[in-house]
Amino acid sequence: MKAVPLAPALALAAAFAALWCGPAAADEGLWTFDNFPEAMVKAAYGVDVTPAWRARVQAAAVRLSVGCSGSVVSAEGLTLTNDHCVTGCVQALASQGQDYQKTGFLAPARPDERRCPQLVADILVGVTDVTARMQGAGAGLAGAALIAAREAEQDRIAAEACGADPTLHCEVVALYEGGEYKLYRYHRFDDVRLVFSPGDQAAFFGGDPDNFNFPRYDLDCAFLRLYENGRPAATPDHLRWSPRAPVAGEPVFAAGNPGPTFRNETVSQLEAQRDLALPLGMTELAELRGRMIRFGEESPGNQRIIDEPLMDIENDYKVEVGRLAALDDPRFMAARRAAEADLRAGAQAKLGAALGDPWADMAKAQAALADVYVAYHQLEIGPRDSNLFDYARDLVRAAAERQKPSAARLPGYADADLPALQKAVLDQVPVDPAYEQLILEFWLSKTRERLTADDPLTRVVLGRESPEALAQRLARGSRLGDPAVRKALWDGGAKAIAASDDPMIRFMVRLDPAARRVRAAYEDAYVGPTTRAAEAIARARFAVLGDSVYPDGTFTLRLSYGAIAGWTYRGKTVQPFTTFAGLYERATGAPPFDLDPRWIAAKGRLDPAMVLNLSTSDDIVGGNSGSPLLDAKGEVIGALFDGNILSIGGDYGFDPAVNRSVAVTAQAIEAALTKVYGAGALARELAAP
Amino acid sequence: MKAVPLAPALALAAAFAALWCGPAAADEGLWTFDNFPEAMVKAAYGVDVTPAWRARVQAAAVRLSVGCSGSVVSAEGLTLTNDHCVTGCVQALASQGQDYQKTGFLAPARPDERRCPQLVADILVGVTDVTARMQGAGAGLAGAALIAAREAEQDRIAAEACGADPTLHCEVVALYEGGEYKLYRYHRFDDVRLVFSPGDQAAFFGGDPDNFNFPRYDLDCAFLRLYENGRPAATPDHLRWSPRAPVAGEPVFAAGNPGPTFRNETVSQLEAQRDLALPLGMTELAELRGRMIRFGEESPGNQRIIDEPLMDIENDYKVEVGRLAALDDPRFMAARRAAEADLRAGAQAKLGAALGDPWADMAKAQAALADVYVAYHQLEIGPRDSNLFDYARDLVRAAAERQKPSAARLPGYADADLPALQKAVLDQVPVDPAYEQLILEFWLSKTRERLTADDPLTRVVLGRESPEALAQRLARGSRLGDPAVRKALWDGGAKAIAASDDPMIRFMVRLDPAARRVRAAYEDAYVGPTTRAAEAIARARFAVLGDSVYPDGTFTLRLSYGAIAGWTYRGKTVQPFTTFAGLYERATGAPPFDLDPRWIAAKGRLDPAMVLNLSTSDDIVGGNSGSPLLDAKGEVIGALFDGNILSIGGDYGFDPAVNRSVAVTAQAIEAALTKVYGAGALARELAAP
Repeated sequence: MKAVPLAPALALAAAFAALWCGPAAADEGLWTFDNFPEAMVKAAYGVDVTPAWRARVQAAAVRLSVGCSGSVVSAEGLTLTNDHCVTGCVQALASQGQDYQKTGFLAPARPDERRCPQLVADILVGVTDVTARMQGAGAGLAGAALIAAREAEQDRIAAEACGADPTLHCEVVALYEGGEYKLYRYHRFDDVRLVFSPGDQAAFFGGDPDNFNFPRYDLDCAFLRLYENGRPAATPDHLRWSPRAPVAGEPVFAAGNPGPTFRNETVSQLEAQRDLALPLGMTELAELRGRMIRFGEESPGNQRIIDEPLMDIENDYKVEVGRLAALDDPRFMAARRAAEADLRAGAQAKLGAALGDPWADMAKAQAALADVYVAYHQLEIGPRDSNLFDYARDLVRAAAERQKPSAARLPGYADADLPALQKAVLDQVPVDPAYEQLILEFWLSKTRERLTADDPLTRVVLGRESPEALAQRLARGSRLGDPAVRKALWDGGAKAIAASDDPMIRFMVRLDPAARRVRAAYEDAYVGPTTRAAEAIARARFAVLGDSVYPDGTFTLRLSYGAIAGWTYRGKTVQPFTTFAGLYERATGAPPFDLDPRWIAAKGRLDPAMVLNLSTSDDIVGGNSGSPLLDAKGEVIGALFDGNILSIGGDYGFDPAVNRSVAVTAQAIEAALTKVYGAGALARELAAP
Repeated sequence: MKAVPLAPALALAAAFAALWCGPAAADEGLWTFDNFPEAMVKAAYGVDVTPAWRARVQAAAVRLSVGCSGSVVSAEGLTLTNDHCVTGCVQALASQGQDYQKTGFLAPARPDERRCPQLVADILVGVTDVTARMQGAGAGLAGAALIAAREAEQDRIAAEACGADPTLHCEVVALYEGGEYKLYRYHRFDDVRLVFSPGDQAAFFGGDPDNFNFPRYDLDCAFLRLYENGRPAATPDHLRWSPRAPVAGEPVFAAGNPGPTFRNETVSQLEAQRDLALPLGMTELAELRGRMIRFGEESPGNQRIIDEPLMDIENDYKVEVGRLAALDDPRFMAARRAAEADLRAGAQAKLGAALGDPWADMAKAQAALADVYVAYHQLEIGPRDSNLFDYARDLVRAAAERQKPSAARLPGYADADLPALQKAVLDQVPVDPAYEQLILEFWLSKTRERLTADDPLTRVVLGRESPEALAQRLARGSRLGDPAVRKALWDGGAKAIAASDDPMIRFMVRLDPAARRVRAAYEDAYVGPTTRAAEAIARARFAVLGDSVYPDGTFTLRLSYGAIAGWTYRGKTVQPFTTFAGLYERATGAPPFDLDPRWIAAKGRLDPAMVLNLSTSDDIVGGNSGSPLLDAKGEVIGALFDGNILSIGGDYGFDPAVNRSVAVTAQAIEAALTKVYGAGALARELAAP
């Protein structure tokens, strides 16, 4: 085993500069499985990550519709992921009386495994290039018309490839900012059941204060099972579970689905994020968080309702703070500016006049964003996390869109999308009126604040009502929390919508025309021009760099490499391992540093020196949560669940000196299953060949 | 009368560029009374703002210790200001059973006028140059030692000038970023009583949604009275009250105390605000606001507690959002960069090698800020708006500092400061444990979040307690809400502090050594070097620009000029007047657009066409609230109470095209007094010569 070539003194700027100018920096890369830097990894770590190695991993790599990753670890569909990826499921199940979020969940036997509402799992089975078709679509069009033509072509390609087979899922993915389009074909599992969750106190020990920090002490793992035809899916191609001790410096790999990153965006795009989207988003999350925290403190019932959405919001808030910090780092922006100038010069030399000036076009599109962003954010994005709003919008829009030919509909309403949409609308999930009221009131008040009381759009949204009164009327009066009511509206279509006196439906009918106009203006002024400019820049990048680069994250399957490693920042060195002993030392008894009683009882049975969490230099971002941590043999030695605070800058650029991922070890999971949770059967299933 | 020369098409950049390169732009300037651009104003508006005119205004211009301005408008100390400047007073008085914030307050006769706790009023009587003494102090020192030497010299100068006379107040003011130091000598009134407040619904109609917006419909005025020796002060030099109709385009002046502005700061200083202070401050305000809003919604009692602090926080939040938007405007920063380069070149040409490179020194000091800012903000600035914390800190620090010679104490604890400090600590104001708990819990949780659970400072602050438990123990257990308890600790000094078992005192005793260390580190790394660099840059600026420029705002008396004018922004033109008719049209019945019942009843008695609010091109910022709006004769035709949203950028640079101040007219105030509030006696006092 080769020690990882860490370079703590390496300047941020030097690392970031690598992004545009040449091959990726050490350990950098959200590599697609079909363009993995095999030779580079062999040279750095002595590991042969052959096509066969990758194919084996790909066959067991799972994407979860909640924005997470996972891996199949038994022949009967058992899937390892993070506990924070199943909190939505746990909360939905817990509504029937038990507080599974607190106690955790263990299915003693198969029949006790509980289906997670709305959750679907995908395993990637094939990738085909469709660049020519997609780039050809919408030729000569611009703005909203271009976007619509592209969406329609995308839906056609997906429908041709997957048809109506519910076990298949097809989607067209824009890689390299539209430089390439690929058709991704998945085996879809829409029956995913909960097998094991360790409960909040163990999974999220340290809570928000420790989130994105390390040292860390979390058993952030959960097990799901994929079902087909009502039975556990047969998964002979599962990965091998390896609960052995990890070794500092050993090479490790992460197979997962990194979410959107912005590493190839232009400086003007980054500035638009820094100056417009991030300040607005960050303060919105902060204020909503404040309301939620206080709401939770009002009663234990409220606290239960708020647990999961608060965890989400605090996570997203930290991400935005970290992102803004990265973009506010003058060295980072200076390096990006210099690299962009290099790329432009290189492209100019290769392409000459044919290049045009797509960077100027891009800057113009970004400048236009300021005029349309707030209205789009408020009216079309809508409230964060309101089930009632989302139901009403989907019902109202689906009723209208289904009257059009599939290709002419809004994105998300094509025939191919309808099964997933219907499932999302009709599955039973708990809807709490008090929480809905909080969410809607906040959104309405922000809409008035940001657009001002004098804006005509504010009047469309509020009429003559106050945010407080309207939110109360909608949240307390709507019956859309009842799946039967939603089903009647879904089945009844436009006629049922027109006849409905549900206040949320009536509100949506009033709002939707304005929201559609705002959306079209946004696409005309911003999305269309950005798409065109990005494609031109992608062509320039290919001309200069060829395929030595990886595409930005798109929540599709990627492979990262690196080693188990700590880091040094501002003179402080952090070691890569934490142990069970550290967990017990850190426990103060007060949330979120309080221990589950089962863990208190099990203290004497656990090896204090056993590694609980570790950090690695793998390049991961949000969406990688639940990714298997693989060793050189491709065996599962842990599950990634986080990054350090400096890894958030990874959304814009990877710094090998300080970007670190955080994982829980397979050995700690096994020890917990057998010595804390009495889950021997599950441990035996994992150990089976 | 000459129409105001508005230039809506004028680019922001052109306006901003004027800041460094030459004389101020049209209508720009926070001019000191002794360096007012008389000729420029004569040329632009045909008004002679002579030294005698200015002396007359100065003699009646009032500074209020709550960060506001005002003007004496009768011979018996009657003082006009804004209602939002007296909400603290109103709330303190209202605690005795009446909800004056809602109902307003009117003293039928002199004996009914109620003293405002903690409020003091100052009238500027003299200004002396002390630049040489101040710049000489601390020669050869740096960092915290420099700051301490300067503070001590400042205290000495003040003590020499004012002695122990409680009717005098002296302070040393750093103008032009330390390029000049002046001794300001004030007549101090520490007995200020409430005469009239119109109540929230009228004063703050439209609430936060309308704050910093225009059109506007607020009767944001209040009357105080200055007392001396228990009697109304004799103020023969009062301004004349002129409740006449304002005329669009007429020249108007504002005499008040603009708070800190940053127009002469360097680009590196602005970037430090943009990248560090503003994101942190803005998100902090947003989250605390969220908690407060929800707290208020829990009960009518909570709502009353929260009213004033929420208004404050929402105001400050908008300011920070507006500031960040200004600094995120690429045209603004580009203009500042260009102007700074010009100034450097000009200074280089004039001063040669003697100049050094103070801009580089300044940039270095700003870069150091990142290392010390968070700890300083959390431990030394402490929680926002916790009376218990502030009492405990002042008691603990005063006990320690009073054992030292006056010159060796921390700033704020010199002999000259003690009377005001003692008043602040001992005056009776309501302390609500539930609100205190909210504030402290928030502050403690942010401290842990920002420093992380592993930071030694976090452990000093929290010990082994959670933010929630510690906040509860402090807020519910402390007896510092009782003035008698505070008096005993103040009088008892160090011995009483050591013997106290009050949890807040014990907490502060634990915290204070760490907070002092953090403060010293902040001064060493940041304040000291910034002070030195700023002085050098100020010398360079004087060398290039002479006294054609005005100093940044310092919450001292300034005179601004301009005209009654609307503005055009992004193609939309806003007219400068609103009327009583507009108020009644805007009222929806739901807060904050609900009318006071007395206003509903008075509708028929008010002239619908009478001007209620107006906008002017005067250059004002926060601190100007309550400033008299003066016409060419120096008569009071209104009270400034706000700016439009674009005026917030005025903290960094004035844009004559869009920066607007907002005022309530004297005629509307008089109509309200006589036709809504039955305050005929007050109106008669105003009308007296």
